Amino acid sequence: MLTPVILCGGSGTRLWPLSRKGYPKQFVPLTGQESLFQATARRLSGPPFRPPLVVTAADFRFIAAGQLAEAGVTPGAILIEPEPRNTGPAVLAAALHALSGDPDALLLVAPSDHVIGRPAAFRAAVEAGIAAARAGRIVTFGAVPDRAETGYGWLEPAEAAGDAGHPAAVPLRRFVEKPRAALAAELLAGGRHLWNMGIFLARADALVAAFDSLAPDLGPPLRASLAGATRDLDFLRLASAPWGQVRAVSFDYAVMEQAADVAVVRCDAGWSDLGDWEAVAREVAAPRAGVTAIDCDEATLLRADGPGLHVVGLGLRGIVAVAMPDAVLVADRARAQDVRLAVERLRERGVAQADALPRVHRPWGWYETLVAGERFQVKRILVAPGGILSLQSHVHRAEHWVVVTGTVRVTIGDRTDLLTENQSAYIPLGTVHRLENPGRVPAVLIEVQTGAYLAEDDIRRFEDAYARGSGE
Amino acid sequence: MLTPVILCGGSGTRLWPLSRKGYPKQFVPLTGQESLFQATARRLSGPPFRPPLVVTAADFRFIAAGQLAEAGVTPGAILIEPEPRNTGPAVLAAALHALSGDPDALLLVAPSDHVIGRPAAFRAAVEAGIAAARAGRIVTFGAVPDRAETGYGWLEPAEAAGDAGHPAAVPLRRFVEKPRAALAAELLAGGRHLWNMGIFLARADALVAAFDSLAPDLGPPLRASLAGATRDLDFLRLASAPWGQVRAVSFDYAVMEQAADVAVVRCDAGWSDLGDWEAVAREVAAPRAGVTAIDCDEATLLRADGPGLHVVGLGLRGIVAVAMPDAVLVADRARAQDVRLAVERLRERGVAQADALPRVHRPWGWYETLVAGERFQVKRILVAPGGILSLQSHVHRAEHWVVVTGTVRVTIGDRTDLLTENQSAYIPLGTVHRLENPGRVPAVLIEVQTGAYLAEDDIRRFEDAYARGSGE
Repeated sequence: MLTPVILCGGSGTRLWPLSRKGYPKQFVPLTGQESLFQATARRLSGPPFRPPLVVTAADFRFIAAGQLAEAGVTPGAILIEPEPRNTGPAVLAAALHALSGDPDALLLVAPSDHVIGRPAAFRAAVEAGIAAARAGRIVTFGAVPDRAETGYGWLEPAEAAGDAGHPAAVPLRRFVEKPRAALAAELLAGGRHLWNMGIFLARADALVAAFDSLAPDLGPPLRASLAGATRDLDFLRLASAPWGQVRAVSFDYAVMEQAADVAVVRCDAGWSDLGDWEAVAREVAAPRAGVTAIDCDEATLLRADGPGLHVVGLGLRGIVAVAMPDAVLVADRARAQDVRLAVERLRERGVAQADALPRVHRPWGWYETLVAGERFQVKRILVAPGGILSLQSHVHRAEHWVVVTGTVRVTIGDRTDLLTENQSAYIPLGTVHRLENPGRVPAVLIEVQTGAYLAEDDIRRFEDAYARGSGE
Repeated sequence: MLTPVILCGGSGTRLWPLSRKGYPKQFVPLTGQESLFQATARRLSGPPFRPPLVVTAADFRFIAAGQLAEAGVTPGAILIEPEPRNTGPAVLAAALHALSGDPDALLLVAPSDHVIGRPAAFRAAVEAGIAAARAGRIVTFGAVPDRAETGYGWLEPAEAAGDAGHPAAVPLRRFVEKPRAALAAELLAGGRHLWNMGIFLARADALVAAFDSLAPDLGPPLRASLAGATRDLDFLRLASAPWGQVRAVSFDYAVMEQAADVAVVRCDAGWSDLGDWEAVAREVAAPRAGVTAIDCDEATLLRADGPGLHVVGLGLRGIVAVAMPDAVLVADRARAQDVRLAVERLRERGVAQADALPRVHRPWGWYETLVAGERFQVKRILVAPGGILSLQSHVHRAEHWVVVTGTVRVTIGDRTDLLTENQSAYIPLGTVHRLENPGRVPAVLIEVQTGAYLAEDDIRRFEDAYARGSGE
């Protein structure tokens, strides 16, 4: 039995505007209906996999939990990192946690922001690594390169690491850091090197031992953070104070590049990390809905991500254009890596779209602003089945609710009513109120707010089912 | 005294997505707060100008009237063409109408979809043409060319037509149809030719005589159409049956290119017809709001036309990107002329954005759909002061109204109430209702519709203040 460890705390900006700080790439349905995180969780579910250990950031905990539920995956645990510390501490925390439940735990550690085109080949590679991992080695996986990529690290096996049909774990001779173009061309031509997929298989105790030997400063604060961890609903929240002492370091740098006994399995599974729009354009068939391309070349990527949005490309050569209702990126495809610079520029200019999406996810569902005017704002609100908004009041605004789908239980002052499609409620300024969905289908409401001050911070919470801090 | 004749019935698509069939270029605030039509009306108001004669299409009558009111211009008349027939019939109708009120009327005929950068120079040119026009000649105006433009017709004066400081009317030797590149270069190099601005000055009786002599088939049906015209609110609606017999023909083709006695005045007034995005990029400083350009060249035009919308350009060379909340154009600037082909493609594909804008203008104000879901739709509605929606009912939908600004009078069944900010009303399915703004400021409402069928054609009208046909 294998325990998947899924890392989903990262927050990249190179796929802006689709991926934003508050809702990053791994949670976005980039390739279809499902997010990359959901695809990863499903790929690593069912025998021989146990329920996954998920490690994420506090900001993403409700997104991760919600997406797992939607994908039908029940996690073994969701570990919350109080602050980002790169992948090293996340892996060590997961290994220590797994070890506490099973001294023989075997972990398959994977990020959640990549695609694997051929899952059967991936699974065969994992299986080929089990014996070596059982024997105490750290087994890494190497994708078969098809170009002289300078954006990935490369792996040099000590001998041929199996072939597509018969993967086998062989010793790893060395890691090659992201190479320059000439070296990458050489590595590709040599035919032996593989791309580092950032996925690996190992016994939890072997991982902990490797950390204790190669990065001994991480263990003490991490163990303290885990010992002081608190249960928070379905989450295990690592203790902040010791976590704050933990050094930020990648797992590759802290352990893999120094470990003596690393094995590698060749994995010809159509892997891509979708690191930027160039990679997305290369790997993913663009959705055709909402797009009209006229005399555009094959290197051009056009996307319309939003209902009722249409993008027209005319005579384009190697252009990436990604449109959302609140933000549009138009870039030379060769500049795909620099999209993060564009996002930094937006932040400097105070443009909200740099980090925030129109739809804001909450533990009970989500809301999005449809229109904001002077003294009024209109939101669409979805309350998931079982979702309960906090008992709250506002000093500066009144609210009208109109139910358009499903059924909600509405508390206004001392009174509680069930409202269903086509019914409405009025919440006068200052009145304590609460909204819940007692039903089995999502409830959708339109909320019209009126008042002189309509920001989110005009909220006084009396009770909250989700133990949230202020501003959450 | 001069009577301006402003032609605003055209409907181009080369500035899509900003200009669409239902709300074309001349009515769009392309260069600032004001539309090109409004700028034209204001440029041609005040002494020596009389109130303008406006000729437009039925579809645009409320837009034209509303924009004139907004610009503070009171028209002499607004003539409604039952169907588009190009500029020739529009000019003849205006001339006949003017003549009926004043046998000595002197007309300055102008389209409404161009810019004039130096209005004083334009006015000086107009004044320089008055004597020749009074004497019975048709006076045309020629812009000073600064490039070998193949998209315009050119004018060849018989002698030097004045200079920038001292424009003078001189005989026109000939029209040059849109030339090929080589000829255009020759015309430019020669230094004598001018661009045809499509603006001209003439006595109404001279125009009518020219039509009767050069395009004699137009007069009879046009006179019948004018004789049968009906007053419709502030509009003079030409009779449809005879208008249907009128040949579609441009004024240049029907009259100007054949007329014997045409004069031309050199007009160095910074004119451009803004015929496509290439011209807009050349002539108009792009608004910077909502745009971030990184390493884009000067030939790149980025526009964000919509509140809360941001466009990022990265590493672009000669790209036009125009974003609206429902539609985005990304085009090679050299392909600007082909935007109309793109719009045709969208029409073939049945994409609503080809012709329709999210905001729909009505005589009483406007509405726009904020979100449309299964079984519900949310609209923002603005009712102008004095605006009255028709007395109506719906078979398939119920409506909730929440007033967010201003005051409205609401009739639901037998009951009439005044609702102001923060009050709401519910209109059950099938109930006769009406909405009016009795106040002095615009009223804004949020309407939430619920029901199985939510299209605009589920409406039964009992009374309408604006004499509208079905679907208007």
